[in-house]
Amino acid sequence: MKIAIDAMGGDHAPKEIVNGVMKAVEAFPDIHITLVGDETEINKYLTNHERITILHTTEVILGTDEPVRAVRRKKTASMVLAAQQVADGTADACISAGNTGALMAAGLFVVGRINGIDRPALSPTLPTIGGEGFLLLDVGANVDAKPEHLLQYAIMGSIYCEKVRGVTKPRVGLLNIGAEEKKGNELTKQAFELLKNANINFIGNVEARDLLDGVADVVVTDGFTGNMVLKTIEGTALSMFKMLKSSLMSSLKSKLAASVLKPEFAALKNTMDYSEYGGAGLFGLKAPVIKAHGSSNGQSIFSAIRQTREMVEKDVVGLITMSIAEETSNKDL
Amino acid sequence: MKIAIDAMGGDHAPKEIVNGVMKAVEAFPDIHITLVGDETEINKYLTNHERITILHTTEVILGTDEPVRAVRRKKTASMVLAAQQVADGTADACISAGNTGALMAAGLFVVGRINGIDRPALSPTLPTIGGEGFLLLDVGANVDAKPEHLLQYAIMGSIYCEKVRGVTKPRVGLLNIGAEEKKGNELTKQAFELLKNANINFIGNVEARDLLDGVADVVVTDGFTGNMVLKTIEGTALSMFKMLKSSLMSSLKSKLAASVLKPEFAALKNTMDYSEYGGAGLFGLKAPVIKAHGSSNGQSIFSAIRQTREMVEKDVVGLITMSIAEETSNKDL
Repeated sequence: MKIAIDAMGGDHAPKEIVNGVMKAVEAFPDIHITLVGDETEINKYLTNHERITILHTTEVILGTDEPVRAVRRKKTASMVLAAQQVADGTADACISAGNTGALMAAGLFVVGRINGIDRPALSPTLPTIGGEGFLLLDVGANVDAKPEHLLQYAIMGSIYCEKVRGVTKPRVGLLNIGAEEKKGNELTKQAFELLKNANINFIGNVEARDLLDGVADVVVTDGFTGNMVLKTIEGTALSMFKMLKSSLMSSLKSKLAASVLKPEFAALKNTMDYSEYGGAGLFGLKAPVIKAHGSSNGQSIFSAIRQTREMVEKDVVGLITMSIAEETSNKDL
Repeated sequence: MKIAIDAMGGDHAPKEIVNGVMKAVEAFPDIHITLVGDETEINKYLTNHERITILHTTEVILGTDEPVRAVRRKKTASMVLAAQQVADGTADACISAGNTGALMAAGLFVVGRINGIDRPALSPTLPTIGGEGFLLLDVGANVDAKPEHLLQYAIMGSIYCEKVRGVTKPRVGLLNIGAEEKKGNELTKQAFELLKNANINFIGNVEARDLLDGVADVVVTDGFTGNMVLKTIEGTALSMFKMLKSSLMSSLKSKLAASVLKPEFAALKNTMDYSEYGGAGLFGLKAPVIKAHGSSNGQSIFSAIRQTREMVEKDVVGLITMSIAEETSNKDL
């Protein structure tokens, strides 16, 4: 199995990318990695070349680049070449921790969509209290979603969740402002009807308040709402940590007590850190394309590679292609 | 000034409603309260009748009632009669801690909209790290909002924030998935243009991640997204408290340290509790209608009354009416 990795994307590239890759090659004897990026920079950290190839390029897409334009113009950028490896069939999948919008554009223009998928979805796994996590899709690939898109997200999410995360009959929920069937806006009302009749384990509407309690394994929503929810969870968690910190530093007594609790606070921070759950899949493309978190360290890159490997091994893309074709032919009957 | 209050709405009615009312009458010599509800129940707690009148009724709208139908059929329900007091001109404003949807329906059908306001907005004040809070509108009164609705929310929110919360030139932000002007879905792109040209202190797009940091004083969004963000903040805060609690109870050492930090944890919980910031205004109606939190205690009811009193005294509804008329005539030029 061959995986192409953008060595230059993310806050700690290429060092942490290279570290993660070396760890993964050691753990999984069946993978071969192509590191795409500046050879000199990569070689500063690469101490083991076994089953690791470097594809040299100096062009890079920056976090500040306008995504679509960057992908169109920077044709030899590390991220674009990694996607190109997949399009050429040289690699089975690709990973980048770089510019999210650019990776979505590279996925769409270079790797291409599965037949019958209108819009790909960006899908991170978010934390739950119990630690099992839930898959949220879409979080921003498609901001003006139609009901059919949400149905496709549900099918893709179910397959991924079952095959890669090992959940039997994943519970699929429609993110909505109330639990009753008639609740919501035009989009959710229409999507509810489609989901009810689809070949998935649809459990109905789920509310944002219950997400971290693990109310569903797969949660579908339009990209605008999904992005809002994702960033609200992040922002609330960060703000609460800030408030807690400043409140704990307010007196000597509380400082001392807080120092005893350091491991507990670290564990909580860890649970809320969704980069621990691997990268966000870009579902609906002809091959697995994974967005690792921008702040990824070696461990997160390792997790993203493990996840990508599972997606290839379980043929998630093939299963999605088949299910979507079935869904489409049912509709045509 | 006369304020009508639904004595039977909320988890702790009528006891805590009555307690809050008695406290408010003592604090504000210029208010007269009409408590609408079951006289016998109310009199169990009412120990001071000065400037407090009871309007007796036994019909009640329940939390489980379908809002619109309940308001249409239960014509003598305490909430409906409180709204009717406002419609008749007997009261200047009304408050309920009951069924939110029913209060919105009562506001719309009984109190009525301001001329030129297409859709009222439900607007709670949410917590920020600094403690100043921000006004979020809409959180669910209008789930399929149009760009003009968001403009009206911005105008209403600015006036409320300036007059009642005492913020000079309130910073109005458009909730969006990125800070750049061109970001977002069709709704936010069009709303951005309208907000840019309005007579408000528009600071552009704001992201969900930065809300609790106090990035804006007034944040406008459609009711679906606003409801999601509100419930995501609530849910994330609650889940984090649960996780923290279970992690702190895991060993004797951590239990002891946690017991020392009880006041700090309580303070954090308090900061995150938005019922502390008063009730949610239902803006765009011909008189102030305030939704107090369902779990309101006497103190929250007191806060809601203080807030309502400010809205009447500063003639927020009159100012909104004037500003909307101006905005409409500008558009017609």
